[in-house]
Amino acid sequence: DFLNALEEVKPAFGADESELEKHLAYGVIHYSKSITSILEDGMLYVSNVRKLERLKHMTVLLHGPSASGKTALAAHIAMKSDFPFIKFITPADMVGFRDEVAKKDYLHKIFTDAYKSPLSLLIIDNIERIIEWNPVGPRLSNTILQALVTLLVTPPPKGHRLLILATTSQRTVMEQLDVTESFDYQIAVPAVNSLQELGAVLSEVGAFGGDRAAITEVLNNLREYTGSDSVGVGVRTILTVAESADTSPDPKGWFVEKMAGLIARYNVR
Amino acid sequence: DFLNALEEVKPAFGADESELEKHLAYGVIHYSKSITSILEDGMLYVSNVRKLERLKHMTVLLHGPSASGKTALAAHIAMKSDFPFIKFITPADMVGFRDEVAKKDYLHKIFTDAYKSPLSLLIIDNIERIIEWNPVGPRLSNTILQALVTLLVTPPPKGHRLLILATTSQRTVMEQLDVTESFDYQIAVPAVNSLQELGAVLSEVGAFGGDRAAITEVLNNLREYTGSDSVGVGVRTILTVAESADTSPDPKGWFVEKMAGLIARYNVR
Amino acid sequence: DFLNALEEVKPAFGADESELEKHLAYGVIHYSKSITSILEDGMLYVSNVRKLERLKHMTVLLHGPSASGKTALAAHIAMKSDFPFIKFITPADMVGFRDEVAKKDYLHKIFTDAYKSPLSLLIIDNIERIIEWNPVGPRLSNTILQALVTLLVTPPPKGHRLLILATTSQRTVMEQLDVTESFDYQIAVPAVNSLQELGAVLSEVGAFGGDRAAITEVLNNLREYTGSDSVGVGVRTILTVAESADTSPDPKGWFVEKMAGLIARYNVR
Amino acid sequence: DFLNALEEVKPAFGADESELEKHLAYGVIHYSKSITSILEDGMLYVSNVRKLERLKHMTVLLHGPSASGKTALAAHIAMKSDFPFIKFITPADMVGFRDEVAKKDYLHKIFTDAYKSPLSLLIIDNIERIIEWNPVGPRLSNTILQALVTLLVTPPPKGHRLLILATTSQRTVMEQLDVTESFDYQIAVPAVNSLQELGAVLSEVGAFGGDRAAITEVLNNLREYTGSDSVGVGVRTILTVAESADTSPDPKGWFVEKMAGLIARYNVR
Amino acid sequence: DFLNALEEVKPAFGADESELEKHLAYGVIHYSKSITSILEDGMLYVSNVRKLERLKHMTVLLHGPSASGKTALAAHIAMKSDFPFIKFITPADMVGFRDEVAKKDYLHKIFTDAYKSPLSLLIIDNIERIIEWNPVGPRLSNTILQALVTLLVTPPPKGHRLLILATTSQRTVMEQLDVTESFDYQIAVPAVNSLQELGAVLSEVGAFGGDRAAITEVLNNLREYTGSDSVGVGVRTILTVAESADTSPDPKGWFVEKMAGLIARYNVR
Amino acid sequence: DFLNALEEVKPAFGADESELEKHLAYGVIHYSKSITSILEDGMLYVSNVRKLERLKHMTVLLHGPSASGKTALAAHIAMKSDFPFIKFITPADMVGFRDEVAKKDYLHKIFTDAYKSPLSLLIIDNIERIIEWNPVGPRLSNTILQALVTLLVTPPPKGHRLLILATTSQRTVMEQLDVTESFDYQIAVPAVNSLQELGAVLSEVGAFGGDRAAITEVLNNLREYTGSDSVGVGVRTILTVAESADTSPDPKGWFVEKMAGLIARYNVR
Ligand SMILES: Nc1ncnc2c1ncn2[C@@H]1O[C@H](COP(=O)(O)OP(=O)(O)OP(=O)(O)O)[C@@H](O)[C@H]1O
Ligand SMILES: Nc1ncnc2c1ncn2[C@@H]1O[C@H](COP(=O)(O)OP(=O)(O)OP(=O)(O)O)[C@@H](O)[C@H]1O
Ligand SMILES: Nc1ncnc2c1ncn2[C@@H]1O[C@H](COP(=O)(O)OP(=O)(O)OP(=O)(O)O)[C@@H](O)[C@H]1O
Ligand SMILES: Nc1ncnc2c1ncn2[C@@H]1O[C@H](COP(=O)(O)OP(=O)(O)OP(=O)(O)O)[C@@H](O)[C@H]1O
Ligand SMILES: Nc1ncnc2c1ncn2[C@@H]1O[C@H](COP(=O)(O)OP(=O)(O)OP(=O)(O)O)[C@@H](O)[C@H]1O
Ligand SMILES: Nc1ncnc2c1ncn2[C@@H]1O[C@H](COP(=O)(O)OP(=O)(O)OP(=O)(O)O)[C@@H](O)[C@H]1O
Ligand SMILES: [Mg+2]
Ligand SMILES: [Mg+2]
Ligand SMILES: [Mg+2]
Ligand SMILES: [Mg+2]
Ligand SMILES: [Mg+2]
Ligand SMILES: [Mg+2]
Repeated sequence: DFLNALEEVKPAFGADESELEKHLAYGVIHYSKSITSILEDGMLYVSNVRKLERLKHMTVLLHGPSASGKTALAAHIAMKSDFPFIKFITPADMVGFRDEVAKKDYLHKIFTDAYKSPLSLLIIDNIERIIEWNPVGPRLSNTILQALVTLLVTPPPKGHRLLILATTSQRTVMEQLDVTESFDYQIAVPAVNSLQELGAVLSEVGAFGGDRAAITEVLNNLREYTGSDSVGVGVRTILTVAESADTSPDPKGWFVEKMAGLIARYNVR
Repeated sequence: DFLNALEEVKPAFGADESELEKHLAYGVIHYSKSITSILEDGMLYVSNVRKLERLKHMTVLLHGPSASGKTALAAHIAMKSDFPFIKFITPADMVGFRDEVAKKDYLHKIFTDAYKSPLSLLIIDNIERIIEWNPVGPRLSNTILQALVTLLVTPPPKGHRLLILATTSQRTVMEQLDVTESFDYQIAVPAVNSLQELGAVLSEVGAFGGDRAAITEVLNNLREYTGSDSVGVGVRTILTVAESADTSPDPKGWFVEKMAGLIARYNVR
Repeated sequence: DFLNALEEVKPAFGADESELEKHLAYGVIHYSKSITSILEDGMLYVSNVRKLERLKHMTVLLHGPSASGKTALAAHIAMKSDFPFIKFITPADMVGFRDEVAKKDYLHKIFTDAYKSPLSLLIIDNIERIIEWNPVGPRLSNTILQALVTLLVTPPPKGHRLLILATTSQRTVMEQLDVTESFDYQIAVPAVNSLQELGAVLSEVGAFGGDRAAITEVLNNLREYTGSDSVGVGVRTILTVAESADTSPDPKGWFVEKMAGLIARYNVR
Repeated sequence: DFLNALEEVKPAFGADESELEKHLAYGVIHYSKSITSILEDGMLYVSNVRKLERLKHMTVLLHGPSASGKTALAAHIAMKSDFPFIKFITPADMVGFRDEVAKKDYLHKIFTDAYKSPLSLLIIDNIERIIEWNPVGPRLSNTILQALVTLLVTPPPKGHRLLILATTSQRTVMEQLDVTESFDYQIAVPAVNSLQELGAVLSEVGAFGGDRAAITEVLNNLREYTGSDSVGVGVRTILTVAESADTSPDPKGWFVEKMAGLIARYNVR
Repeated sequence: DFLNALEEVKPAFGADESELEKHLAYGVIHYSKSITSILEDGMLYVSNVRKLERLKHMTVLLHGPSASGKTALAAHIAMKSDFPFIKFITPADMVGFRDEVAKKDYLHKIFTDAYKSPLSLLIIDNIERIIEWNPVGPRLSNTILQALVTLLVTPPPKGHRLLILATTSQRTVMEQLDVTESFDYQIAVPAVNSLQELGAVLSEVGAFGGDRAAITEVLNNLREYTGSDSVGVGVRTILTVAESADTSPDPKGWFVEKMAGLIARYNVR
Repeated sequence: DFLNALEEVKPAFGADESELEKHLAYGVIHYSKSITSILEDGMLYVSNVRKLERLKHMTVLLHGPSASGKTALAAHIAMKSDFPFIKFITPADMVGFRDEVAKKDYLHKIFTDAYKSPLSLLIIDNIERIIEWNPVGPRLSNTILQALVTLLVTPPPKGHRLLILATTSQRTVMEQLDVTESFDYQIAVPAVNSLQELGAVLSEVGAFGGDRAAITEVLNNLREYTGSDSVGVGVRTILTVAESADTSPDPKGWFVEKMAGLIARYNVR
């Protein structure tokens, strides 16, 4: 069933990895070829930083729509890197600070700490929230933005190496803010784009009691509802709606209704 | 009569429920099928959070026009959830704080408190006021907004479960602010939309001394006045105007005059 | 003559009423039917709050052009309410405070005080100035605005009743700020709209030595000057210009000249 | 000659009047009928405040182009009022204050002082500078603006009388800011509008050694230069350019050159 | 040669004049008639302030393109004025102050000091920088702007005389800010406008080893390059490029290349 | 191979030069004639400041696209200047300061220090970041901007000489901010513009194992991909992508894929 099927998909981590593990509740499902390619590029950058003197400082941005798996993929790469110093920075870490200066200092401190290890990996999650972006105004913390960009492009001290993985669901904003220029590489993390990929996800996790016919029925109903094969919804949203649906009196009907709403909403915008 | 008829509609609560009860002065009237459906979905999310490990953190937004019953419905679901920790957060709780940092800290504290209970439910009422939104400028507290969104999407610690119900009458604004993306589900709470629904509300509460003919007369007069069957006024407004009208020298005339003004006003905008 | 004629129009108040009396220098002149209707609706809301459990909290906005009598009418209703706690809040009360936080706290304090009486009436005069509105920018105190709106919609504690009368000459602004949504009822206070109403005002106060022929002459001259019967000037402006005119070498000529200027100015805008 | 001719125009004041006298360096020249009419209206308001109970509080705005004589006329009316308390408030009084709150408190203090005298006259000079207006942005001190407007419309305490004369060269801005609504009366102070009025000014002060032919020559040259009879330059500018010209090697040529430049500049804008 | 040729152009100053001398590194070259006329008008204002009671306070604005010689001309007039108190205020004097209030206080202090001398001259250099103008936003210090304008128009105390010379390369901005209205007179300082004037400058300083033929060659080459006789580059820029060119392997070629670039740049904008 | 080939390109520096050396990881490759010309002009300004009294203060701006080598070239010129005082100012030096005032004071301090040496050279790197520019809003620190511009144009004290080299990748912004006017000279640093220049870079560093045929293959593939000879990518980006590619399973394929993406991205924008 749903829960057991996932057990196999989810990789097993050691004790120190529990912080990263948290971001991989549903593991990494290979529902499309792009997932493999993302992981390969990620590991190439890991090995560059580890080995090449002039590439001892590298910055990579994972961007993609909401719930598409950016954080999970960054956590996955970090776990496989075997770097001795791995630090996860999220907006939630900063919510208790008084103001933008305190948050900026915290960010600065984390980089200073990372510089102490010979080989460090930082994940900076949701950089649009880290800089307190909101589209109305628009507003953001210029203090944090300037610090973030400056810290991103500053090489670690002699004898130290640093890989930075950052995530954002607001790539266009990051372009406008000239933040993307501070990254050596960008990795696009796609949503689940087609009914075929959606089927792959549902099969993999054994949705609807692992009943293939039920999945086919659901996909057909969705195609009728939306009149197309497009999906455009993040893998995490699909997984949680499927799990909720399982507990409703009419799992397939409820799943189709909510998914159709999401597909309509994301394709309009 | 008016007051007695309502006694039966209003559910009876225990002592601990008096805080939630306050928001249900007129109970929950089932004047349309959508009310039933809202309550069913609400209870499904309640049971998901209670039972499923990976859905232990869920966020739901109730949105709809002014006075449509959003707060009352959230209070109703909370009362029926039987969760041991239920906390109601309203803008009025924050009015005494000095500035946005103090308000942000208060919000943070409530979440921290909720994390201490194994099973918590938070109602965050009128999130547009919580973030101090005003459409001219436009202005808002980015400090509170960032904290709110970050707290919304942060899962509770291991072994803890959290359901968040939030309300807003400014859904479009919440879309523009990218706040809606932080909610797993959205529930639309409609206004009383047609004269038929208005009639159902008036009958249920025994308006005009419970005289059906009087209600029919009132509905006919309104149809003449406005030239249509549309209403578009929130259930609470209807209930209070009806109660005021009862004390005027000409209850039916006064009710029709004020309702016609409200219908014109809400349909123009 | 002018001064004596007014003595009779002006109601007589008790000692405690001297604060409210101040706002009724020229009493309430019934120069049009709408004045009667405003006072009737006002008294209905007074009685609702006094008697009905679910209408124990009511908010009413008096809006209209400059000098049209909003404050005088609110003071008049308050005096006739016989409520034990009546409090008048004006922008002048706040001018000595250091900043918007101090002003917000003062506002909060007044509401807290009102909650202590079982039956309270608050007049909040010129809410556009209370929130420090100015149209260029535009600018306002969001801190005060948020507090005002939150305090307006928050019901008094159990066992307490509260009627709020607020005034504004900037209704459109209040609409834009979503402030009007916080009021249960709105009352429009018109300017003196026609030469006929103007004549009624001038007769009532015995302008031009109470000489009816003089008044007719003045109205005719104005009609010639402006080419229409429209006036659109607030009753207070009319009363003060008439009183000034009385002291000029040519009362009728001076009155017509200044009134024509005012009519032109208000109708252009 | 120039200096002596002016001696006669300038009224002679007592010792206490030296502060007001400063603003009348060139006295008041009656170069057009509007000057007489301004002074008459001013004195009518002075007598209203002194004598009529309900007009014990009056506010008057003198507006007009730069250097047209607004401050001089207000000072002149004040001197002739014989009020026991006369206070002149200028932006220069405020330049040493730390911030807008300190300036606001100073303004408040002056009004509080005025309330202590039974009969007070305040001149508030250049209100656009008092509120720190600048057109780019645009920017101003909302703190001072709100205080100013509130203080303007607040009547003095029982038994006290207050006349306020304010000046501005930015009437349109004051309209936009809704400041003009706070004044009971407005007085327009014109520039020297025609070559004829310019001639009257030059004759009165004995410019060009009091040589009438020289003045005629200058006016003719200006008419040729500019191609019209319009002038549109403030009386103070004319008087200072004439005085400077007198010391140049070619007084008439220099005067015509500078005046033509000013006429062009003010008529373009 | 270049250096010696300039020695003669540069006036010789006394010890106290070293501060002013600094701004006249290349002296004042009379490359066009407008330079003479500027100096004459300047000296007329100097004598007016010194001698005429009612012109004891005068304000003059020198405006013109970048590097056109505004500061040098103001320094030159100041040196020739023989006033006992001369003070030079530049943005560099203010760079060490903490904030705009400190800068405003410094400005105020300088005026207060000037008031102590019976005859004072203030040069306020680059008023656009004094008020911290930047065109993006746009932004400026309203605190400093208000103080500057107020101090400009405030006459010195009885028995004191004050001439103010200010410079700006942003006259249009000063117009928009209503700052120009605070000046009694404006003086336009032009750039070197034609190849003929450029030739006069180069001859005067003995550029290209004082070789007239070389200068003619350079002018011809520039005419060919740019296709016109226009230059539009400030005299200081021309003098420094010429001096740099002298040290390059190919003085004429280098000068033509850089000048052509400057001419193109200033004429495009 | 790649690493050894670079050893020869990279100049060898003395001990004191290690700070500057850091910015020359890949040395200076002469892949186009403009590189030589930039270095020649740079050395001319170095010698002017050293030798000419009136050019003892000179300011030069190096501008160009991201990663084009601006910082490396400024560092190179500084190393070759042999000036006794050389100071490098980067945004990273300022990240630890609390606010813009602290940063402004730091900037001021560095200039004050430089004034103490008879012959100083300052490199101000990335002035757009120094002034905290971000294009959304747009926002910047006006405090730092005003200080920077004022310090740029202020000559060092008597007997001291100062050359300032600044870099920016936002020249258009600097134009809009009127910052470019503060520089005596501007130097454009181009990207690697054509496939031919790209080939020169790759050959020079011995990319793809120094295999000429491989380079030709790569260039041909790129020409096919992009359909043109344009490149428009900074030299540093090319060098790092080439080095990364070397460690991938398919160096040529990976290099072409990433370069094509970069070319598309930079040419679209
Ligand atoms: N191929 C996959 N890639 C990434 N995540 C996957 C994949 N397959 C399954 N998952 C699961 O999907 C979830 C991805 O959620 P995640 O929070 O990483 O998304 P996100 O893009 O970071 O969302 P947000 O926009 O909210 O930051 C995780 O629970 C992860 O275990
Ligand atoms: N079907 C219903 N749904 C919700 N409320 C109902 C319903 N029937 C009656 N009511 C009554 O209507 C009132 C709803 O008011 P409530 O304050 O919840 O509206 P709201 O949408 O939250 O308004 P606001 O926009 O002011 O926040 C309550 O008094 C409630 O008892
Ligand atoms: N019918 C009337 N309604 C109101 N006021 C009247 C009426 N007749 C006479 N008055 C007198 O007119 C004056 C009304 O002035 P009031 O200050 O109340 O106007 P307002 O609309 O509040 O003005 P503002 O826009 O300045 O706040 C009072 O002096 C009052 O005594
Ligand atoms: N008819 C007149 N009205 C006013 N001022 C006159 C008149 N005749 C001569 N003057 C002189 O003209 C000058 C008027 O200058 P004043 O400063 O009052 O003008 P202003 O309009 O206040 O200027 P600003 O716009 O700068 O405030 C005074 O010196 C006054 O003596
Ligand atoms: N006719 C002239 N007028 C002014 N300056 C001249 C003239 N002839 C030569 N110079 C020299 O030209 C230089 C003028 O530079 P100055 O700094 O005064 O220009 P500026 O217009 O103030 O520039 P900026 O716009 O940078 O403030 C001085 O060194 C001065 O000696
Ligand atoms: N001709 C060259 N000019 C400049 N740098 C070169 C050249 N050839 C090779 N390089 C190398 O290229 C890199 C240039 O990077 P640098 O950081 O100076 O670029 P930049 O334009 O300052 O980038 P940014 O826009 O990020 O500030 C250095 O490592 C340098 O050694
Ligand atoms: Mg994420
Ligand atoms: Mg609600
Ligand atoms: Mg009022
Ligand atoms: Mg004035
Ligand atoms: Mg200058
Ligand atoms: Mg650089």
